[in-house]
Amino acid sequence: MKKIGIIMGSDSDLPVVEKAFDVLEKFGVPFEVHVLSAHRTPAEAADFAKNAKANGMAAIIAAAGMAAHLAGAMAANTTLPVIGIPVKSSTLDGLDALLATVQMPSGMPVATVAINGAANAALLGVQILAVEDEELAEKLVAYRKKASDKVLAKNAEIEAKYNG
Amino acid sequence: MKKIGIIMGSDSDLPVVEKAFDVLEKFGVPFEVHVLSAHRTPAEAADFAKNAKANGMAAIIAAAGMAAHLAGAMAANTTLPVIGIPVKSSTLDGLDALLATVQMPSGMPVATVAINGAANAALLGVQILAVEDEELAEKLVAYRKKASDKVLAKNAEIEAKYNG
Amino acid sequence: MKKIGIIMGSDSDLPVVEKAFDVLEKFGVPFEVHVLSAHRTPAEAADFAKNAKANGMAAIIAAAGMAAHLAGAMAANTTLPVIGIPVKSSTLDGLDALLATVQMPSGMPVATVAINGAANAALLGVQILAVEDEELAEKLVAYRKKASDKVLAKNAEIEAKYNG
Amino acid sequence: MKKIGIIMGSDSDLPVVEKAFDVLEKFGVPFEVHVLSAHRTPAEAADFAKNAKANGMAAIIAAAGMAAHLAGAMAANTTLPVIGIPVKSSTLDGLDALLATVQMPSGMPVATVAINGAANAALLGVQILAVEDEELAEKLVAYRKKASDKVLAKNAEIEAKYNG
Amino acid sequence: MKKIGIIMGSDSDLPVVEKAFDVLEKFGVPFEVHVLSAHRTPAEAADFAKNAKANGMAAIIAAAGMAAHLAGAMAANTTLPVIGIPVKSSTLDGLDALLATVQMPSGMPVATVAINGAANAALLGVQILAVEDEELAEKLVAYRKKASDKVLAKNAEIEAKYNG
Amino acid sequence: MKKIGIIMGSDSDLPVVEKAFDVLEKFGVPFEVHVLSAHRTPAEAADFAKNAKANGMAAIIAAAGMAAHLAGAMAANTTLPVIGIPVKSSTLDGLDALLATVQMPSGMPVATVAINGAANAALLGVQILAVEDEELAEKLVAYRKKASDKVLAKNAEIEAKYNG
Amino acid sequence: MKKIGIIMGSDSDLPVVEKAFDVLEKFGVPFEVHVLSAHRTPAEAADFAKNAKANGMAAIIAAAGMAAHLAGAMAANTTLPVIGIPVKSSTLDGLDALLATVQMPSGMPVATVAINGAANAALLGVQILAVEDEELAEKLVAYRKKASDKVLAKNAEIEAKYNG
Amino acid sequence: MKKIGIIMGSDSDLPVVEKAFDVLEKFGVPFEVHVLSAHRTPAEAADFAKNAKANGMAAIIAAAGMAAHLAGAMAANTTLPVIGIPVKSSTLDGLDALLATVQMPSGMPVATVAINGAANAALLGVQILAVEDEELAEKLVAYRKKASDKVLAKNAEIEAKYNG
Repeated sequence: MKKIGIIMGSDSDLPVVEKAFDVLEKFGVPFEVHVLSAHRTPAEAADFAKNAKANGMAAIIAAAGMAAHLAGAMAANTTLPVIGIPVKSSTLDGLDALLATVQMPSGMPVATVAINGAANAALLGVQILAVEDEELAEKLVAYRKKASDKVLAKNAEIEAKYNG
Repeated sequence: MKKIGIIMGSDSDLPVVEKAFDVLEKFGVPFEVHVLSAHRTPAEAADFAKNAKANGMAAIIAAAGMAAHLAGAMAANTTLPVIGIPVKSSTLDGLDALLATVQMPSGMPVATVAINGAANAALLGVQILAVEDEELAEKLVAYRKKASDKVLAKNAEIEAKYNG
Repeated sequence: MKKIGIIMGSDSDLPVVEKAFDVLEKFGVPFEVHVLSAHRTPAEAADFAKNAKANGMAAIIAAAGMAAHLAGAMAANTTLPVIGIPVKSSTLDGLDALLATVQMPSGMPVATVAINGAANAALLGVQILAVEDEELAEKLVAYRKKASDKVLAKNAEIEAKYNG
Repeated sequence: MKKIGIIMGSDSDLPVVEKAFDVLEKFGVPFEVHVLSAHRTPAEAADFAKNAKANGMAAIIAAAGMAAHLAGAMAANTTLPVIGIPVKSSTLDGLDALLATVQMPSGMPVATVAINGAANAALLGVQILAVEDEELAEKLVAYRKKASDKVLAKNAEIEAKYNG
Repeated sequence: MKKIGIIMGSDSDLPVVEKAFDVLEKFGVPFEVHVLSAHRTPAEAADFAKNAKANGMAAIIAAAGMAAHLAGAMAANTTLPVIGIPVKSSTLDGLDALLATVQMPSGMPVATVAINGAANAALLGVQILAVEDEELAEKLVAYRKKASDKVLAKNAEIEAKYNG
Repeated sequence: MKKIGIIMGSDSDLPVVEKAFDVLEKFGVPFEVHVLSAHRTPAEAADFAKNAKANGMAAIIAAAGMAAHLAGAMAANTTLPVIGIPVKSSTLDGLDALLATVQMPSGMPVATVAINGAANAALLGVQILAVEDEELAEKLVAYRKKASDKVLAKNAEIEAKYNG
Repeated sequence: MKKIGIIMGSDSDLPVVEKAFDVLEKFGVPFEVHVLSAHRTPAEAADFAKNAKANGMAAIIAAAGMAAHLAGAMAANTTLPVIGIPVKSSTLDGLDALLATVQMPSGMPVATVAINGAANAALLGVQILAVEDEELAEKLVAYRKKASDKVLAKNAEIEAKYNG
Repeated sequence: MKKIGIIMGSDSDLPVVEKAFDVLEKFGVPFEVHVLSAHRTPAEAADFAKNAKANGMAAIIAAAGMAAHLAGAMAANTTLPVIGIPVKSSTLDGLDALLATVQMPSGMPVATVAINGAANAALLGVQILAVEDEELAEKLVAYRKKASDKVLAKNAEIEAKYNG
C-alpha cells in the first residue's frame, strides 16, 4: 500500500498531529513523519514534496500554525493530494492558520480540515487510498459503523437516564 | 475511469461551480452534476451520497453557501472523499460557508477548498484519481507545468517592460 | 401537553444542554433527550425529526458545535419549529457553530439562540407551547416576574451599599 | 387564527421585511406591520410588545440593523415568542446586527434567523402557529414538498444538460 | 456638582464596573449605582434614564455584556450623554457587546469605550462634568500629569536597567 | 456657547463628517473644522488639541479611517472629551478604524460612535454642551421628539397600507 | 545604490503594486519587477530570493493575495528584509492575505504593511536604504514635509470654507 | 554600529518585548529601551522619535496593545524604519493591536510583525542594519543555518522514532 506522508512545521505541533498517527495505525495504513518547516528548511520541505510520489506516498498531510504555509509549500511541489491541518497557536484561535491554509489560489488545492483536525486529516488520507483499495474501503465502513454504534449506545444510555 | 460527482445546494451556485466542469473536462475526467439540497431534499441528497460509490464515483464535490451543510451531509453518507466548496453569498463574504464546511467534527472529514474555489475542488478530485492513475498523474504534471510557464511568460513580459 | 424534543450531537454537549432540562422541569413541560449526530448517525437523526410530530413533540431543540449541522438536519426533516443552540468548542469561540446554525437558507428556519444559550432555547420552547396554553403563559409571566424581582432585589442591595 | 406581529426599526428595512409578508400571505396567516424603533419610540415599541398577546398575536417578528435592539426590546416586554431578523446595513455586513440580536442573556430568548432572513422569520412564525393548527401544519408540509419538487425539477434539468 | 449615574445589567458586571467607582471617588465626583436590566426590568431601566436629569445626573454610564442593549436603552430614554461599557462575557471575547453598544443608529449616540473599559468610562464622565467646572478640569490635568509621571518614572527605571 | 472642534485626518473623510456639521448647525452650536493628520502633521494635530480648551472648545470630534489614531492623539493632548468617528475605508469595512478608535488604554478615553456615525458624534457633542445649558437640553428633547414623530408618522403610513 | 526587488504572485496584482513603482521612481531608487508565484513557480521564486543579495538588492517587496505565501517564501530564502503587501481579493476583504503575511513564525520576519499598501511598502524600502544613505534620508524628510504641507494647505482651505 | 531603539507603551509589555533583547544581544547589535506612551507621554514619545536618528539609531521597534498607536506615533515623527509589534491584551486576542498597527495610511509605513512577535521585530532590525554591514549579514546567514539545523535535528529524531 502507498504511504501517507505526514509533515509538521515544528515539533511543537506533535501533540495535535499525533491523533493522525492513531487513525492511520488503526487502518493499517503505512505513514512516515517529518518535521520540516516551509520557512526554516524550505529546500528540504520542497524536496520532501518533490520526492513524495517516488518515495511511495499517495498523499501528504501538512500541519502548521500562524501564517501556515507548509501545506501550500507541499502543494507547490507535488501533484499528490495535499491535506492541510491548520494548527491553533497562542493568538487568534487558529483563524490565521485556517485562512493561510485554505485560501489557496486557483491551481493549487489544499484539502483543508478543521483547526487542529488531525484525525480527520488522517481519515481523508485513508479515504483517498480507499478509492482503489476495496479492503480499506470496507474498513472505513466498519469504522464509521463503530462511530455510529458508539453514538447510539450513548443515546440509549442518555434516553434511559432522562426519558424514563 | 471513476467519476467525480458534483453536487450543489442550489442552481444559483452554478456560476461558481462551472469552473470545476472546465477543469475536469480538461483532464478528461468523467463527472456528473446534481442539484440537491441538504435541507430541501435531504433524502435525495443522502441517497446520492450513499450510492455514489456503487454508481462509480471516486469522490464527491459539494458546493453550498451560508450554513453550508451539503458537504457535511455527503460526508455523513459515504466514505468516499468529500470535497467542499464554500460559496460566498450576499452577506459575511463567505465566512459562514467556510466555517460551516471546514469545521467538521472528528470522524467526518470534508476536504475544504477556498471560498468559491471550484477549480481547486476539481483539481483535488483529479489528484485523488491520479493516485492510482499514472496517465492522469502525468497530465497533472503537464497542467502544472503549463501554469508555471504562463507565470514565467508573464514574468518575462513584465521584466521586459519594467526592468529594461 | 406536547413534549419538547432535545437532541445533541455528542454527549460532550451535555453540560451545556442540561440547563435546558432545568428550565423545562421548572415549567412542568415534558421533554425527551437524545444523543444523535447529523454526521455519525444521519439516518437516526433524520428519523427522529421525521417522527417528532407523530411522537407528540411540539418543537425540537438541537445543540451542536463546530460545523453545527444538527439543527439544520432537524429542520430539513420536520416542519416543527427547530431551535438551535450553537455550542462553543475548543477553537473560534463558538463563532463557527453560530454561523453554521443561524445562516440557514430560505425555506428552512432554525430559531437560533446565543452561543451555549440552552436555558433560552428551553424558554423559547415553553413560549411556543404557551401560545395555545394559557396556564403555561401565566407561568412564563410569573417566571419573568421572578427574574425581574431578583434584579430589583439585587439593585436594592447595591443601592444600599453604594448610594448610601 | 392568531396573528403574527411584524415590527421593523425603520421603514428602510421594508425591502428586506417584505419577503416575510409574502410568506405569511401564502399561508393565509394574518399579520400586522409596524414601524417602531427601540430607540426613537421606546415607549410605543414596548407598548406594542406588552399588548401583543391581548391584541391577538401569537408571535412577534422584529427586524433591525446595526446595534439591533428591537427584537430584544420586544422580548423584554412580552412572553410571546420573538423572532429576530438581523438586517445588513452599510458596514460590517450584518455581523453587528446578528450578534446584537442573537446573543441575548439568559431568560430572554430571541429566535434569530439568518441576516436578512425575513422569509425564514415568517416561516418560523407559521411553524409556531402550526403547532396547534393541523391545517396549517399540512400547508407547511405541502410548502416544503413544493420547495423540494422545485429543487428536483431543477436537478432533472441540470442532469439532462450535463450528465447526458 | 451633578452626579454620574452608573447602571449595570447584572451584578456579575460589578468586578468590571468597580474600576469606575475608584476613578470617580478619586475626582470627588458624586455617583450612584444601580443594577437594572434592559431586558429583565425594562420599565425600571427606562424610568431610571427618564428621571436621570431630574435626579441631578449629568451623564449615565451603562455596562452590559453579550447583546448589550443597556446603554442603548438609556440613550432611548434620556438626552443626557450615555457612556457605554461593553463587558466581555464567556464567548466571543466582548466583540458582541462592543458591536451591540457602539453601532447605534443615527440620532441615538452611545459614547462607547473599550471592552471592560470602566475606568475610561468614568474619566469620560469626569471630562463631561469638567467642561463647565474649572476645578475638575484642573484635577484632570493633574491626574494626567500623574499618569505621565508614572510612565516617565518607569521609563527611568527601565533605561537605568537596560541602557546602562 | 463653547464650540465643538471637528478634526479629520484627511479631506477624503469630508463626505462622512459633513453630517456632523448639519446636526451642529441645526442646534445652533458653533463649531470649527480642521484637516490635520495624526501622522502627517502630528505637531499641528497635537497643538490643536492642546489649545482646544483655551480656544473655547468644549469637546473635540475626530474622524479617521484605517489605523485611526487621530482621536487617540487628541485624547493624549487634551483633557476635553474626545469623540471618535471610525471611518470606513476600502478594506475591512471599518473594523480597523473602529478597533483603533475604541480600544483606548486606561486613562485615555475616546467616546466612540458607530462606523461613519458623524451625526451621532455631533449629537454627543450637543449633549455634552447641554449638561449645563438648559436651552440646548430642551432643543435635544424637541429634536428627539421630532425623530420620534417621524417614526410614528411612518408607522401610521405603513399601518394604513398593510394593516388596513 | 542597491535595488529594491519587487515580486508579485500574479500580474493581476499589478494595479495594486504599481503604486510602489511611483514612489520608488520619485526617490530615484532603482528597482526591478518580477511576477513569480510561491505556488506556481516555487523554484524560480526561491531562486529570486536566494540571489537577491548577490544581484544587488537591499530588500524585497512581495505582494500576494488570499493564502499569501509569497512574502514568507521570500523570507525563507534570503536574509534581506522582506516587505509584505497583503492584496485584497474577491472574498474576505484582504483579511486572509493580511494574516497569511503578517503572522510569520519566530525567526522569519516579514515587514507587513496595510492591505493593498504598496506605496508604504515602497517607502519602507526607501527608509531601509536611507539608513546608510544620507541623501536619501534627506529626500524622505522632504517627501514627508511635502505630505505635511499638502495637509496644511487642505486644512487652510477647509478652515477658510467652514470656520469663516 | 547604529543602534536599534526599542520603545514600549507600558512596562507590562516587557515580557513580550524581552525576546527582542535576546535576539539583538545574540547579534551584538546595540539597542536602547524606553517605556513611553503615545497617549500618556505623547511629547516624550514624539521627541524620542524625532531624535532617534541624531541619537544614532537605525530603526525603532515599537510595541503596544489595544488601540496600538505607538508605532504610528513613531512613524509620524521620524523617517527611520519603524517596526511595530502588536501586543495581545486581555480581549480580542491581539486583533485590535494588529489592525491599529498595520493599517497605516499611505505615506506612513509601519513594518508590522506578528502579534507578540518581538523576536521577529528584532531580526528585522538586524536585517535592516545588515543591508550595509556584511559581517552582520553573515551572522544572519549563520543564525538561519542554526535554526535550520535545529529543525533538521528534530526531524532526524522524529524520523527515527516514527519511521523506524
